[in-house]
Amino acid sequence: MPLGKRTDCGNARYAGIWPQRCGGVCDAIQESFQVGLDFVLVSLNHEKLSTGVGPPHTSINSDLDLQAQSWTSQVVGVASDAPDDASSGDQGVASAARVLEKELGWATYLGLQAVVLPSVAGLSDAITPVVAQSVSQALGSKTFLQMWVQVPVASGASDHESYYRRWHTIRALSDYHKQVKVALVLGAELPDKAELEVWLGEPVRCVIIPISCFVFNSKGYPTLRRGHQDFLSRLFCLGVQVVIREDSLDHELGADAVRTAQDPKGNPLRNYYEYISYLFRRMPALTENEEAELEYRDYLQSPLQPLQDHLESATYEVFERDATKYTTYEEAVFRCLQDRCEGGLIDGRKPVLMVVGAGRGPLVLASLRAAKRAQVELRVFAVEKNPNAYVTLLHLHRRENWGDGVTIVHRDMRSWDTRERADIMVSELLGSFGDNELSPECLDGAQRFLAPNGTSIPQSYTSYLAPVSTSKLHEEIRNLKDPKLQEMPYVVKLHAHCLLAPNREVFSFEHPNPADQIDNERYRSLSFRRFGGGRRPGVLHGFAGYFESVLYGDVTLSIRPETHTESMFSWFPIYFPLARPVYLRPGDEEIAVHFWRRSARHKVWYEYALASPEMGPLVNADGASYAAEL
Amino acid sequence: MPLGKRTDCGNARYAGIWPQRCGGVCDAIQESFQVGLDFVLVSLNHEKLSTGVGPPHTSINSDLDLQAQSWTSQVVGVASDAPDDASSGDQGVASAARVLEKELGWATYLGLQAVVLPSVAGLSDAITPVVAQSVSQALGSKTFLQMWVQVPVASGASDHESYYRRWHTIRALSDYHKQVKVALVLGAELPDKAELEVWLGEPVRCVIIPISCFVFNSKGYPTLRRGHQDFLSRLFCLGVQVVIREDSLDHELGADAVRTAQDPKGNPLRNYYEYISYLFRRMPALTENEEAELEYRDYLQSPLQPLQDHLESATYEVFERDATKYTTYEEAVFRCLQDRCEGGLIDGRKPVLMVVGAGRGPLVLASLRAAKRAQVELRVFAVEKNPNAYVTLLHLHRRENWGDGVTIVHRDMRSWDTRERADIMVSELLGSFGDNELSPECLDGAQRFLAPNGTSIPQSYTSYLAPVSTSKLHEEIRNLKDPKLQEMPYVVKLHAHCLLAPNREVFSFEHPNPADQIDNERYRSLSFRRFGGGRRPGVLHGFAGYFESVLYGDVTLSIRPETHTESMFSWFPIYFPLARPVYLRPGDEEIAVHFWRRSARHKVWYEYALASPEMGPLVNADGASYAAEL
Repeated sequence: MPLGKRTDCGNARYAGIWPQRCGGVCDAIQESFQVGLDFVLVSLNHEKLSTGVGPPHTSINSDLDLQAQSWTSQVVGVASDAPDDASSGDQGVASAARVLEKELGWATYLGLQAVVLPSVAGLSDAITPVVAQSVSQALGSKTFLQMWVQVPVASGASDHESYYRRWHTIRALSDYHKQVKVALVLGAELPDKAELEVWLGEPVRCVIIPISCFVFNSKGYPTLRRGHQDFLSRLFCLGVQVVIREDSLDHELGADAVRTAQDPKGNPLRNYYEYISYLFRRMPALTENEEAELEYRDYLQSPLQPLQDHLESATYEVFERDATKYTTYEEAVFRCLQDRCEGGLIDGRKPVLMVVGAGRGPLVLASLRAAKRAQVELRVFAVEKNPNAYVTLLHLHRRENWGDGVTIVHRDMRSWDTRERADIMVSELLGSFGDNELSPECLDGAQRFLAPNGTSIPQSYTSYLAPVSTSKLHEEIRNLKDPKLQEMPYVVKLHAHCLLAPNREVFSFEHPNPADQIDNERYRSLSFRRFGGGRRPGVLHGFAGYFESVLYGDVTLSIRPETHTESMFSWFPIYFPLARPVYLRPGDEEIAVHFWRRSARHKVWYEYALASPEMGPLVNADGASYAAEL
Repeated sequence: MPLGKRTDCGNARYAGIWPQRCGGVCDAIQESFQVGLDFVLVSLNHEKLSTGVGPPHTSINSDLDLQAQSWTSQVVGVASDAPDDASSGDQGVASAARVLEKELGWATYLGLQAVVLPSVAGLSDAITPVVAQSVSQALGSKTFLQMWVQVPVASGASDHESYYRRWHTIRALSDYHKQVKVALVLGAELPDKAELEVWLGEPVRCVIIPISCFVFNSKGYPTLRRGHQDFLSRLFCLGVQVVIREDSLDHELGADAVRTAQDPKGNPLRNYYEYISYLFRRMPALTENEEAELEYRDYLQSPLQPLQDHLESATYEVFERDATKYTTYEEAVFRCLQDRCEGGLIDGRKPVLMVVGAGRGPLVLASLRAAKRAQVELRVFAVEKNPNAYVTLLHLHRRENWGDGVTIVHRDMRSWDTRERADIMVSELLGSFGDNELSPECLDGAQRFLAPNGTSIPQSYTSYLAPVSTSKLHEEIRNLKDPKLQEMPYVVKLHAHCLLAPNREVFSFEHPNPADQIDNERYRSLSFRRFGGGRRPGVLHGFAGYFESVLYGDVTLSIRPETHTESMFSWFPIYFPLARPVYLRPGDEEIAVHFWRRSARHKVWYEYALASPEMGPLVNADGASYAAEL
C-alpha cells in the first residue's frame, strides 16, 4: 500500500521491510502487506548454492515460491556478508567473492530488481575492490539487477571518510554504472544538515532505517527525531525508498511499548509504517510552478538557438505564460519612459521604441502597457526574422487594432537598414547563462539604429558559475553515448544535486557597447572555496550556470539562486558537464576552472578546463562538440 | 471520438477529415468533432508566406487560431500542389520547391504532427527529386514533422509502377528516414488482393478515402465494396488511420441520397464516419494468443543463448505455459515408448530416459505423464547446467515425490561422465531457426551416453527462409545505430510485413548423428521465385526464418507458416536483416541469397550475402557482429 497518494516522488511511495526473523518468503510478503509495506528484503543465502555464512534470515526455497512478477516487484535480495579477511592474503580475499558471485547469479535468475550488498562498514579496504569486481562482472552479463551498496550515514568524520571512500571504490571500479546505487543506512545520530547534503548528489536509491533509530513518544508510538525527519523529506523528494530494518532487541522493546499503547494483538510494525506514511503525507504539496516543472526535473534540454533555428509557436506560447517576466519588462520600460520623457516627448518628438526579436509580440504588448501607464504615445517597431512569427505579428496587429503606432518589420536586426532611430531598444535574447543565446552579438548588430543617448533594455547581464555534484545528470549524459554530447552545455532543472561551493561571477556585458572594436570573447580563471572547508570527500560532475540582468536601473531579472526573481519560470539553470567525474579528497579546499567564451566568424562557444584539484582536459576545444551559430 | 473501444490497433482508432470547402480551421475542427472525426487536414497555403497556387481550402489565419496542443493533436497540414513544370527547365523545377520549403517551415512552426505532401500522381519524374530534396532538408532541422506522401493505389500496372517509383525516389533520397510515410489514396477500383499486399510492408501511415469511393446501399447509406472493406481491415491492424476526403461533386450526391434516407438536417458526413466506425468495430476480437503476443508485434529480441547465459526463472515460466508444445512432447515420448517397450521393458530392463537441458523440469513432467499412459516404469535422469534451475529441480523433486525414479544431475550434457545409457534422450534446444541455439552441438556432445539403438526426441529439424519486405523492422534496426546491430538476427513476431516469395528449405540436422567426423557447418545457395512473377516493384529488407522438427515418427513441431503447430506460441520467426534495403524492379523475378552456417572453436554463426537482384556485401563475416557461443 503506497505511503500516500502523491505521485511526484516516484518510487518513494513504496516502502519495504527487512525482517530479521527466520521464515519463508511467502509469509514475509504476506505479513508486510498486512502492515502496509510493499516489498521485502530476503536473504540470498541458499544451501544448495553453497553460499552464505551463518544461518539465513528470511529465505527462499526455490523460484517456485512465487510467480515471476512477484519476484520482480515484491522482493529485494540481500547478499551475505563478506567473510572476515583478517589473515587470509590476496587469494583468501578473492575466494570470498565467489559467494557473492553465486548470489548475484541467483538474484538474476529469480528476476529480482535489486540486491542489497554488504555494508561498507563491514568491508575492509582490502576486500572492497574484490566485492566491486564481482559487482562489475555481474553487470557485464546483461542483467537489470540494481546493486544497492549499504553505506551508513556516519556522524564521525573519519568513519565517513572511510565509508565514502569504499563506496567510491565500488562505483568507480564499476565505471559509474547506472545500476550501482547507494542504500543509505541511518543511525541514531546524524551529522549536521550541511554534511548530509552531499548525499543529494549521489545515486541514493533507498534509505534503510533500523528500528533502533526510532524514539517513542509519550503515548508509546515510534517517531523519528527532527533531523531524521527533515533528511527523510529531502530523500523522499528524490524518489528514495524507505526500508524499515527490524532489529530484534529494539524491536521487542518497541513492540512492548506499542502493545501497551494500543491494540495488544496488532502487528507492532504497523505503527512504524504509519509514522513513515505520516511523514510522507505531511510534506507540503507542490506549488503550481513546481507542478509544471515536475517533468523537467533533471531532464536535459539542448539550449535553444533562436538565432540559428526558427522557434516554434508552442515554444513562444510557453514563454509568454511567464507573467512575472513581462510585468518586470513593463516596469523597466515604464521607469525608462518616466526618466526620459518630458511631456510625453523625447527631444520634442514622439519616443521611438523598438522591440528587436519581437517573436509573437509579448514585449510589444508589455511596452504598450507601460506607455499607457506613463501616458506616453509611442512609435513602436517590432523587428522579427522568423517568417512564421511574422505572420503571427501581422495577425496580432489586426486583432489589437495597433494601426500606425506599431510597425511590423520582417528582418534580422543585424541587417535591417532603416533611417529610424530607437530611443529605447527592448529585447529578450538572454539564455540561462546570459550571453549564451548570442544576445551580445545581436544587440551589437542592432545598436546602429539606437539613437545617441538611447537606452537598451536590458542594460547589462552577468553570468555565474558553481561546481556541482550530480550523479543523476552524469548518468543521463553518459546514456547519450555520443562523445560530443558529453561536452556540451544543457539547460536543466537541477533536482538531485548538491552544490559544492558558492557561485562566482563569470562574464559581463553592457549595452549599448561604446567600444570602437567590439570584442565579445572572454576568459576567466575561477577559484571556488568548497563548503565546509572541503573537509569531507565528494565527487565533482560539472558546473551549474546562472545569470543576473539589469533591465533598467534597479529593475532586474535573475535566476541566480541568491537573487532569483520570484515565481519567474522562463529559465532553468545551464549545466556544463565534465565527461569524467572527479573525486574530491578530504582537504581539497579549492575547485578551480578556466572558462572561455570564444568566437569565430560564424559561431560562438564556451571552452573550459578543470584546474584544481586536478588538471582536466580542455572541454569543447574549438567548439567542435557544441557551438551557437551566428 | 475514437472509431471504437479496442486499442490494439494503435492510432487507427482516430480518423480524420479532409474538407474541400473554404473556411477557418476552428470551424473545420468543430464540424469534424460533431461528426465524430478526430482531426482535420488543413491547407498550409498562406498569403503572407507567399506560398501556394490557387485558392486555399480550409485555411489558417495565424498560429493564434488554436492552442499549441490542438495544432499537434487535431490538425494535419496539406502542402500545396507543386506547380506544373512542363517547360520550365531545371531551374524552374527547383524554384517550385521553394513554396514547399516555406510550407514545411510553417507546419513546423505550428507544431503539426504531419504534412500531407502532393500526390505522386501529380508529380512528374523531373520534379519528384526536387520535392524529395525539400523533404530531406526539412528533416535535417530537428523537426518531428512526419511527411505523408500521397500515393494512389493504382489498379493499372503502369500507373502503379510510376507511382511506386516516385514514392521510392522520395524515401530513398531521404535515406529511408523514419518520418517519411505513405498516405495511400484509395480509388473506386482496387487491384487484386495479392497486389495490395505489397503495401503491408511499406510505412503506410494513413489511408485517404475519397467520398467518391463509397457506394450507396438500398437505404441510401454510404458503404464500401467488399475489396475495400477487406483491405481496410488489414490496414487497421497495422495502425493505419483513415482520412475521409470530401469531393464536392460526389459529396453533394451522397448528401442528397442520405438526406432522403435520414435526418434531413444532419451533417451527411456523419453517415460516412458511422460506416468506417462500423468496419472498425466489426473486426474479430483478438484471440487469447494474439492478445498475449500484442506487445511483441515487430518487437526485436536478441535470440536467446541458453548455452552461454543462464536463463532466468521468468523465462522458463513463460515457456512452460505453452501447453501445446509439452503435450506434443508427451505424445512423442508415448509413441516412442509404445514402439520400443515390450511388457514395459527395453531389452529386458527398465527403460532409461534422459532429459538433457532439463531447465525447471517441464519435459521431465511430460515424460512421466507419457510413461504413465504407456504403463511403463521409467528411470529418468534430468541433466541441467544452470546452477539456479538445478535448485528448482531439487525443489520439484521433493514436492512431486519423485523418489529414486528421477535423478537430478547438475552438469553440462557435453561433459557429464556417466555409465548410464539413455534409451530415449529428450531435449528442447531448438531456436526459431532450428539449430540456432546450438542444438546440434549439444546433442552431438550428449550422444556418448545414448544407448545403441537409442532414440533422440527430436529426431530431426530443418530450417526455412523467405525474403520479406518490412519497412517497420528496417526502421527499428536503423534506430539501434550500432553497425553490428544492423547485421545480427532477431527473434520477432513479424507483423507489418509482406513475404515476397514462398519459403525454401535451408539446413537439416538428424539425431543421433552416426558420422565419424561430425561437421555441423553448412552452405546453401537459395533462389526464390517472387510472388506474381515479380511483375510489380517492391523493396527487400531481409529474410524471415522458421523451423520444422520431427519429434518422433509423425509427431512434429513447426513454426513454418504452412505447417504451424496450432496454438503453440513458444517461438516467433527469426529475422535476418539487410543493412541497405534493395529495390526490386518490375521484372526482377528472382531473389537469391547465399547462406552459411559456420563454426569455430568457441562459436557458431550465420553469414549471408544477397546474390540477386544484386550482389550484396557478406553480412556478419566471421561472426564479427553476432555469434552464438559454445
